[in-house]
Amino acid sequence: MKIALAQQNYHVGNFESNTRKIIEGINQAKKQGADLVLFSELCICGYPPRDFLEFTDFVNQCYAAIDAVKEHADTIGVLIGSPSRNPLKEGKDLFNAAFLLYEREIKSEIHKTLLPNYDVFDEYRYFEPAYEWNVMEFKGKKLAVTICEDIWNMGDNPLYRVTPMEQLKKFQPDIMLNLSASPYNYAQDIVRNSIVKAHVVKYGIPMLYCNTVGSQTEIVFDGGSLVYDIHGKCVKEMKYFEEDFAVFDLEELTRGEKSPKQRQLQHSQAGPSSAIPAAAVEPILAEETYFYSAQEVGRGVNTLEYLADEKNISEIYHALVLGIRDYFGKMGFTKAILGSSGGIDSAVTQALAVAALGKESVRAVLMPSQFSSSHSVSDAEVLSRALNNPYDIIPIKGIYDAFLKELKPIFGDLPFSVAEENLQSRTRGNLLMALANKFGYILLNTSNKSELATGYGTLYGDMAGGLGVLGDVYKTQIFALAKFINKEREIVPANVIVKPPSAELRPEQKDSDSLPEYHILDRVLYEYIELRKGPKEIVAQGFENALVDRVLKLVNTNEYKRNQFCPIIRVSCKAFGIGRRMPIVGKYLS
Amino acid sequence: MKIALAQQNYHVGNFESNTRKIIEGINQAKKQGADLVLFSELCICGYPPRDFLEFTDFVNQCYAAIDAVKEHADTIGVLIGSPSRNPLKEGKDLFNAAFLLYEREIKSEIHKTLLPNYDVFDEYRYFEPAYEWNVMEFKGKKLAVTICEDIWNMGDNPLYRVTPMEQLKKFQPDIMLNLSASPYNYAQDIVRNSIVKAHVVKYGIPMLYCNTVGSQTEIVFDGGSLVYDIHGKCVKEMKYFEEDFAVFDLEELTRGEKSPKQRQLQHSQAGPSSAIPAAAVEPILAEETYFYSAQEVGRGVNTLEYLADEKNISEIYHALVLGIRDYFGKMGFTKAILGSSGGIDSAVTQALAVAALGKESVRAVLMPSQFSSSHSVSDAEVLSRALNNPYDIIPIKGIYDAFLKELKPIFGDLPFSVAEENLQSRTRGNLLMALANKFGYILLNTSNKSELATGYGTLYGDMAGGLGVLGDVYKTQIFALAKFINKEREIVPANVIVKPPSAELRPEQKDSDSLPEYHILDRVLYEYIELRKGPKEIVAQGFENALVDRVLKLVNTNEYKRNQFCPIIRVSCKAFGIGRRMPIVGKYLS
Repeated sequence: MKIALAQQNYHVGNFESNTRKIIEGINQAKKQGADLVLFSELCICGYPPRDFLEFTDFVNQCYAAIDAVKEHADTIGVLIGSPSRNPLKEGKDLFNAAFLLYEREIKSEIHKTLLPNYDVFDEYRYFEPAYEWNVMEFKGKKLAVTICEDIWNMGDNPLYRVTPMEQLKKFQPDIMLNLSASPYNYAQDIVRNSIVKAHVVKYGIPMLYCNTVGSQTEIVFDGGSLVYDIHGKCVKEMKYFEEDFAVFDLEELTRGEKSPKQRQLQHSQAGPSSAIPAAAVEPILAEETYFYSAQEVGRGVNTLEYLADEKNISEIYHALVLGIRDYFGKMGFTKAILGSSGGIDSAVTQALAVAALGKESVRAVLMPSQFSSSHSVSDAEVLSRALNNPYDIIPIKGIYDAFLKELKPIFGDLPFSVAEENLQSRTRGNLLMALANKFGYILLNTSNKSELATGYGTLYGDMAGGLGVLGDVYKTQIFALAKFINKEREIVPANVIVKPPSAELRPEQKDSDSLPEYHILDRVLYEYIELRKGPKEIVAQGFENALVDRVLKLVNTNEYKRNQFCPIIRVSCKAFGIGRRMPIVGKYLS
Repeated sequence: MKIALAQQNYHVGNFESNTRKIIEGINQAKKQGADLVLFSELCICGYPPRDFLEFTDFVNQCYAAIDAVKEHADTIGVLIGSPSRNPLKEGKDLFNAAFLLYEREIKSEIHKTLLPNYDVFDEYRYFEPAYEWNVMEFKGKKLAVTICEDIWNMGDNPLYRVTPMEQLKKFQPDIMLNLSASPYNYAQDIVRNSIVKAHVVKYGIPMLYCNTVGSQTEIVFDGGSLVYDIHGKCVKEMKYFEEDFAVFDLEELTRGEKSPKQRQLQHSQAGPSSAIPAAAVEPILAEETYFYSAQEVGRGVNTLEYLADEKNISEIYHALVLGIRDYFGKMGFTKAILGSSGGIDSAVTQALAVAALGKESVRAVLMPSQFSSSHSVSDAEVLSRALNNPYDIIPIKGIYDAFLKELKPIFGDLPFSVAEENLQSRTRGNLLMALANKFGYILLNTSNKSELATGYGTLYGDMAGGLGVLGDVYKTQIFALAKFINKEREIVPANVIVKPPSAELRPEQKDSDSLPEYHILDRVLYEYIELRKGPKEIVAQGFENALVDRVLKLVNTNEYKRNQFCPIIRVSCKAFGIGRRMPIVGKYLS
């Protein structure tokens, strides 16, 4: 049996384009002689559909799209993902389902069991978990079909009490097929390979794992679909950050003898087929290494090296480029504008935008003030010339003075303060938005994760924008990104990389006046944000008590600012945004 | 047995203040001779703690607070809510628990079964549901203790497959006690009374229902704790939007004969105590009226009358005042500033702010432009004088002209457009933020729900602010609020109520140039947002096809704007914010 994997980029709610894409995939699979073609989780409506799922009309449109696809599933089997109505009164209205279409009919349907409800995931908000399991029969083969998270419990994941593959194993399936919408973070490829390999080793049958690709608002899906044969060998790792398509022969994936160890493992698992209570499954692969999360992958690794690791930085670069490209493409936008300060954050953002949208679609605006250093304009100009971007220079002094003049009767002789600093930043935000509104640009935000974490930014000023390009990238990583961008030729001017970071909102200002040095700050932030350590645990890593308290307090008291921030392209395992839900009015560590 | 109900206002994560309050409640209960005192759900840490629960350190602090409270539970029983660690490896780390403290010990602990995971709720993100049930024994009585949502299934709520009270009934309890953190919306009192009454009627024992009160960022808890006797009579409905405390005698609540109907109901439910499968519970109160949601209460009611209903408007007024007061109090702020346009939204916001914070703590800023009508300044001045608020007038023309001058080389002779409109709005936003930064004010946002729904507002301009006071109040309701505010004397000037709404950003502009009339718009919005009807269903109510398509498209394409909006005080059953999670990059009805 030949099985095709279609790794595609969908658009949430865009049934027309998703259906067209799926039909193209079917046709391609037919052309290449496949018996069956596998798509990804919820491909019919795109993932994640979020509260669209609460609209009956939306679910109706999903069913209509399945009907349209069905007509093309004539001589070929088609496995697609879609929400499915729960026919029972009990339980939520919907399942997260996979449909097997063949001979222009829905032949069978299975439901997702393990519904992720952490970080960016809200599946329990919408879906009822599967309560019964069965293989799908197709052309004499038994397919153990699971959906994404369903394989994320080898029996020892405390989040879940059921292991779907343990249920499916009872039917002696010939192959495992998984439909996924598994988001990128810079360790997810390792996690994903480890868990797919663990399944193949444990169950002794091959696995085809089809992931989606593409960015949906803040969540980037990285593709990297996997095929493992019965020997635990990775036969195919499909493209990352791109659509891809390939056909595999089931016979080739099962060729050869199983290893003695595999036979032993499978033997030790045997038992009366109905007698395995779900919660009693023991982790029997203790010697094997598999991970459930990026946090586990990073454990024991030097934080700064891990954050700036060459593999990670290269992936982050491609994830951000895809994140920008898909945000614009799917929103129907083409042109980006950004404030170019001569600093490293805006320089890296500009280079990423050019990679995503093309040089003629990115416009830089340089807005010097009386506090700007002489190099801030010249560095920004060098950058725009290196990238071949149009740019404008608009000094803000006249506008800033006009503000101060009107405020003078109220401000009186009060000393210069954060009010005047923010006024400059907001004047720049206004100018950028005025240009965006006038010419149809979308403003890219250049704030980094270290700044957003500590609240070192101005609401409606440098925090303005439609998309946060670097909001999940620590400052330490931005230096590494700049070097990555400069690998072939100098794009980010060397001076931008070496000069000390500064907001330039008052004379001689440096970031380090207000914040710890980034190589310390970022480590503390990583411990707190990604690893969710408490103050005592972080201090135990060797940081000063006062510094840890100060940083954690900054993070917690600035929740209100981040709450008004635009979507951030997520590249880590814990990004600010929908995956991190903190009280704004709270009094913990603050 | 005498049981006290302590309806208190907690602060999320503020263990010091929550513990102090709980101990005060215990002392008050002792003074009044109570045997047992009942607090509300998660009172130890405040509700909702959100992702604070993912920090081990935070849960440690909950346990430390229980230890502190325990010392005061010497001669009195104390029922408090707190997260509790799951001792098993299987399942999530935490339960949402109630602890019975007595004789300085934890005597017993029960866990919440039904974990709401819809709208503003995310409990399945953190908690494992209860898998076993038992009554708590105290002084010879059996207490059927449930937590909030646990009573929100009479056996026919499709969200759930278990009815906790059906499990507890087997132990023949003497009383039902419920610890709640049940948020306000303008029908919740009806829903809550109906469900508590249904329980008493069904199970034939009295119920004491203790709700929390107070606002936590966007969610207002309204109190209104309830006590029902065995005859289904409401013995006490505690204060709304205020703390309250009272003691009840169990003997008085059970005095008298049960009705023949109750006996029959209870008889029909009897059976072998272990033989009731959870999902098989039949709704046996078909003749009784109870509601699971505000949407059900509003069904069949004339939308406009319902939205502006006098009872609802009075409640909304008090909810908004509490929302403002608690936001400021818990954030440690005292003074509010707002832009006063002479329109009804800012007028109502200003009156609400004065009610919440006092007249000397609210400052209005009038910022006329060349497009402002003559009455906009005079109406705003009349308002500020009626409220006794300090106010300033800052014309924006000079700043606006300074912007245009710097933009002239790029804008050239392009016609006046939304760019210039937004520039005025953002200039005002900047001025307000400058004053806020200089003097320590918090900017109150005055946008209403109709505007936010349709995107009729300027990001970083009139959409700026720390708290959205009217963001869950439709324009139609704001007129009713203004009348409510004027009940005793004219505060909102009559002219503000009668003049046609206008943003005044270009000559002769009216809201109705861009939007349908509010009495039509608000009805369509209510159908789509609160009731989640699809376009066909809404058209079937008698609205024009083109109008419905246009309104729904406006709502969906403006998700990106609302995503950057501040927290909105929630008063309806579906507010913009954490309870409505829509894709930003999506293509549904847009």
